[in-house]
Amino acid sequence: METLNKTSAPASGLPLAFHGTVIHARSPNDLEILENCFVLVDKDGKIQALQADVEASQINGIVSNQGYAPDVFPVKHLCRGQFLCPGFVDTHNHAPQWAQRGVGRGQTLLDWLNQVTFAHEAKFAAPDYARRMYASCVAGFLQQGITTAAYYGSHHGEATRILADICLDKGQRALVGKCNMNRNAPVWYRDASVSDSLRETRELIRHVRNIDPQTRLLTPILTPRFAISCDSDLLAGLGAIATEHPDLPIQTHFDEAEQEIQFTKQLFPEFHTEVDLYQRFGLLNHRSILAHCIFLQEDEMRRIQELHCGVAHCPIANTTMREFMVAPVREYLRRGIKVGLGTDSGGGYSSSMLEVMKQAFVVSNAQQMLTQGRDAPLSLQEGFFLATLGGAQVCGLDEKIGNFAIGKEFDALEIHTMDLEHAGVMTPVEDEDSLAVIFEKFLMTGDDRNIAKVYVRGRSVKV
Amino acid sequence: METLNKTSAPASGLPLAFHGTVIHARSPNDLEILENCFVLVDKDGKIQALQADVEASQINGIVSNQGYAPDVFPVKHLCRGQFLCPGFVDTHNHAPQWAQRGVGRGQTLLDWLNQVTFAHEAKFAAPDYARRMYASCVAGFLQQGITTAAYYGSHHGEATRILADICLDKGQRALVGKCNMNRNAPVWYRDASVSDSLRETRELIRHVRNIDPQTRLLTPILTPRFAISCDSDLLAGLGAIATEHPDLPIQTHFDEAEQEIQFTKQLFPEFHTEVDLYQRFGLLNHRSILAHCIFLQEDEMRRIQELHCGVAHCPIANTTMREFMVAPVREYLRRGIKVGLGTDSGGGYSSSMLEVMKQAFVVSNAQQMLTQGRDAPLSLQEGFFLATLGGAQVCGLDEKIGNFAIGKEFDALEIHTMDLEHAGVMTPVEDEDSLAVIFEKFLMTGDDRNIAKVYVRGRSVKV
Repeated sequence: METLNKTSAPASGLPLAFHGTVIHARSPNDLEILENCFVLVDKDGKIQALQADVEASQINGIVSNQGYAPDVFPVKHLCRGQFLCPGFVDTHNHAPQWAQRGVGRGQTLLDWLNQVTFAHEAKFAAPDYARRMYASCVAGFLQQGITTAAYYGSHHGEATRILADICLDKGQRALVGKCNMNRNAPVWYRDASVSDSLRETRELIRHVRNIDPQTRLLTPILTPRFAISCDSDLLAGLGAIATEHPDLPIQTHFDEAEQEIQFTKQLFPEFHTEVDLYQRFGLLNHRSILAHCIFLQEDEMRRIQELHCGVAHCPIANTTMREFMVAPVREYLRRGIKVGLGTDSGGGYSSSMLEVMKQAFVVSNAQQMLTQGRDAPLSLQEGFFLATLGGAQVCGLDEKIGNFAIGKEFDALEIHTMDLEHAGVMTPVEDEDSLAVIFEKFLMTGDDRNIAKVYVRGRSVKV
Repeated sequence: METLNKTSAPASGLPLAFHGTVIHARSPNDLEILENCFVLVDKDGKIQALQADVEASQINGIVSNQGYAPDVFPVKHLCRGQFLCPGFVDTHNHAPQWAQRGVGRGQTLLDWLNQVTFAHEAKFAAPDYARRMYASCVAGFLQQGITTAAYYGSHHGEATRILADICLDKGQRALVGKCNMNRNAPVWYRDASVSDSLRETRELIRHVRNIDPQTRLLTPILTPRFAISCDSDLLAGLGAIATEHPDLPIQTHFDEAEQEIQFTKQLFPEFHTEVDLYQRFGLLNHRSILAHCIFLQEDEMRRIQELHCGVAHCPIANTTMREFMVAPVREYLRRGIKVGLGTDSGGGYSSSMLEVMKQAFVVSNAQQMLTQGRDAPLSLQEGFFLATLGGAQVCGLDEKIGNFAIGKEFDALEIHTMDLEHAGVMTPVEDEDSLAVIFEKFLMTGDDRNIAKVYVRGRSVKV
């Protein structure tokens, strides 16, 4: 079981230990900055100890209390300007659009799908192409510090199984879904029938459970692209699979654009709203990841709250294509609805969650204006929460990841900010900067070059 | 005259020559993509020849027609995925805020000035600090492909002269201004008197003209920070200098924020608008660079058009701090008002004109929404125009730079996009991509790592 060994972490079989600054979110408004923190990650990749204000001389004592002989493993000391933070969780990502990010700006959503995207995704019919492209894609997102991604694959079964293989091999935590789509797409890029679509979906579930039987990294996810591309039989079939597998997450595009909502209403005149529609097919519950959620009516908002659905907020895609669309994130947070951030690569041009977070600030400023001040902008700590623990909640993984609570798995970034002489494009760190300012400089101006190491379950995965 | 020799370009004293793809804007809606283009830059850094559809075998003939013996200088052949484009023009940049970019988001403009910015800029009283910081700043902006910047210095005379020295030394084209500010700033960070402020301004003009007597790279620029920080005597004194030096550009912040406009009205109750105010002091004409221009009244818009003022559009700063503010760029373009883009570093967090351009798209999408469709979003080519030729027009430099018209100076970027195996975070280039798609991928997802070379007046200046 070579593959499984690879997912055991860390590779050495020894614990990992760090001493230095640790920054994580405990809730939207509770950012914790721990100085001189000692972190111990056991050989299974779980956080065994987390203790702030530890002097170097105390470390051996803590190690011994945790049941290890002193000096059997190294402790990595982080310098000033370096810190650990949780890895980013990307709640909405179209893996096969990796090589089309940024292309086709200025088109409406449905035109962009038909004219740019479907032709591009169709290329994943070729397994070799899928293998090359997904290897680049997963490596690229890991380079950006995305330790967990909720991926839409293409509609192809084989390519999507390859995507799962590559995530496991490269050590990225992932929700991997085969796009279900049997209509309103070109005949050369859609599922041939309902039964084909469902069979490939079941095959993906089997494959993922086979290569990662303990769900260490991988979760299959049901992925009806959106109701426009799925007929009633297909949605009903997916609802049946969701009932059959009560641990399976579900993702779809939801109230994303006015054009999309109108077309959906034409196709399903019997439903008043998209909540009505997806709920009737058994696809709305605490496992649902609803991408975009721009145009929800009051009744829909109330019901996704009651059903404990999560929202994947994708501010780059929502504002850089032909339209400027504002998801009411403050309202979702006020109602206690789970919210995370998504690159929406490639509707979103960027592969960086730092860029997504900054665009979430922009959208929240716009919403403040549009609501005449009712909805306050997102704070820096709220943005960081959404990119980490908020996303973990949306993906149903907050018991496992999202921050550094003891017992969670160590999905982490080692951030190296720089002084004046080495800062490059990041804002240089100055002598008098507090840890809060250093953190702010990284979030607002850092990039993947400041992400020196990426860990998933304690395994170092950034090439 | 060692310094002057440095600004002669290229350093070799030989012409520069390229053969490959060249992309530049001739107007907002006329993007020219020249294939197999031969570019010849004479030893003074001027574009001597530009000819598309040239086969390699024809190059020697062209070289000979241009008066050179064949093979006396090398021709650089650009591969597929590589191209030349004009350098970026940053029309609004606070050099002393280099090390505070991104800090203080969530504060209103005036709070941010008082609580973050003034304390930071005050450090430039120390020449050694200024020298270190400006060396990093100018190198950083060159790394981002900014070949021309309109810089606000701090209020210090000496530090601002140092900034000019460093631009000249590193080979960046720049407009360099000492901030005039004698009130509404802490006593430890403002000009001691009107006469001090004007004397330091005249001293900067003399210094810049002394180190670059032929205005090869440097232009001094009058820089009243804004009317809030300048009393009437100071504004009148600056107006007198503007009259005395009819070639001197002028820059200030203009109708940037409601809070700022209200305070200005309190200070100058005799003027109805900021156009009234600045025009009365002789500071509004074709040489004026007005940063932000968010809240112009109809009358103001008409008058800045008649006066041929330029607009420095800074969409990142306008949308990422506490507010979401939309400059009506489409309306400015419709009226034929000059518009360029500005990083507004550090009110804007980013040092990248690519990021600024993308945020201009976002703001233009928002404006489309706010005007119920009247103002169409900016196209990709319009965004690129604003970042290059549009900025050159705003800075009064469009006779010299902004595109590759024969006779202009060669301020250029050599862009290297990448294939799947080497793309990093940029969207990888695929075999079937047209030049237009490659260009789009670079603009939307490239960064400084794709800017392989930066030329100013033919001199290679990126370290």
